[in-house]
Amino acid sequence: MTRVRLDLFTSLDGYTPADPTPDNPMGEDWGRLTAAYAATRTFHEYVFGDTSGKGTTGVDDRYAVAFFEGVGTEIMGAGMFGLHTFPGDADWKGWWGDTPPFGTPVYVLSHTAPRPSIHMEGGTTFHFRSAAIEDVLAEATEAAGGLDVRIGGGYSTARDFLRAGLVDDLHLMVTPIFLGRGHRLWDDLRGFELTHEVTTEVAESGQIHVTLTR
Amino acid sequence: MTRVRLDLFTSLDGYTPADPTPDNPMGEDWGRLTAAYAATRTFHEYVFGDTSGKGTTGVDDRYAVAFFEGVGTEIMGAGMFGLHTFPGDADWKGWWGDTPPFGTPVYVLSHTAPRPSIHMEGGTTFHFRSAAIEDVLAEATEAAGGLDVRIGGGYSTARDFLRAGLVDDLHLMVTPIFLGRGHRLWDDLRGFELTHEVTTEVAESGQIHVTLTR
Repeated sequence: MTRVRLDLFTSLDGYTPADPTPDNPMGEDWGRLTAAYAATRTFHEYVFGDTSGKGTTGVDDRYAVAFFEGVGTEIMGAGMFGLHTFPGDADWKGWWGDTPPFGTPVYVLSHTAPRPSIHMEGGTTFHFRSAAIEDVLAEATEAAGGLDVRIGGGYSTARDFLRAGLVDDLHLMVTPIFLGRGHRLWDDLRGFELTHEVTTEVAESGQIHVTLTR
Repeated sequence: MTRVRLDLFTSLDGYTPADPTPDNPMGEDWGRLTAAYAATRTFHEYVFGDTSGKGTTGVDDRYAVAFFEGVGTEIMGAGMFGLHTFPGDADWKGWWGDTPPFGTPVYVLSHTAPRPSIHMEGGTTFHFRSAAIEDVLAEATEAAGGLDVRIGGGYSTARDFLRAGLVDDLHLMVTPIFLGRGHRLWDDLRGFELTHEVTTEVAESGQIHVTLTR
């Protein structure tokens, strides 16, 4: 049974960065927010292609393993793919090089001129869709073949799916820092614990993992 | 060496309740926020006077024990003591009955007409002070005799001490619910992790304990 999954990073004060630039597409706060996750063995392997076994293997890594498991298709926003940063570049293929770490069909939500699908190495295909999120989700669910659909981000896409009540499994990685600026993620989660069951766990790194499961 | 301690409850989205009424001085959100703490054996004993051993004995209780240990004096705001709710009642002695659970001198910050100190059973004495918080803290530190000074609350008093940089040990009890209303506690804590060391821990109840230690 396909579930709709979303993983989000947030500071303790509920901010997710909003300061991206072309040189630093995630913004300068992103590194502090994601340091514990980027330190995991699984992240080293899946994102850096480093199979030396380097990286942490504790609670953070357990969640990182789960992040990459059981995903049939992914949906991301135009901004996450990079269309807002490089709107005029018809050859833009995302931030992830020739072999993106998805390995699945990825549906990119875009209201600009339609683009042909792009087949990448490693099993990733980028499809561009301008339909309503419910319709794109239906297509992604069909294509997932019983596996899960991951909402990849960024923030405004995550917010759209959260507010539409479409997320079954939400994983919040709460980093114990106070960013004091960015998008106010908590505003989108009011009452979430009334429809979803909450668990909390702290990793060796100090990172707090909160899961909300419908 | 006296340290200045502050314990705060907050929802995951950083709210502490702001809906008190005379009938419900803590506000209706308070019960949900503090349920895990109120369930501890130590809270049952110190606040309810229940020495039957009833209550939880896990991580939440360990923090509850620490809450009551090593405190020499306490400082609280006029609102927490009840002066805002019952401003005309010269005989008002706080919410806690004849034997308040403090057992120490308690300095109540008040800008209204001076009141004589009130000696209660169990070692609690309420003193009323209209001086600057730094001056009241100096008096409370002197009276603590090497033990700690606890900032008891409520929110605006906590905020004043936080913003003045006077808190050495901050203990945040983060309840995994989204209140979506109240005082925005996180706004007062921006950059706190730059001056204080952070630890995070989750109790069996799911309550997240964050400590920030100078």
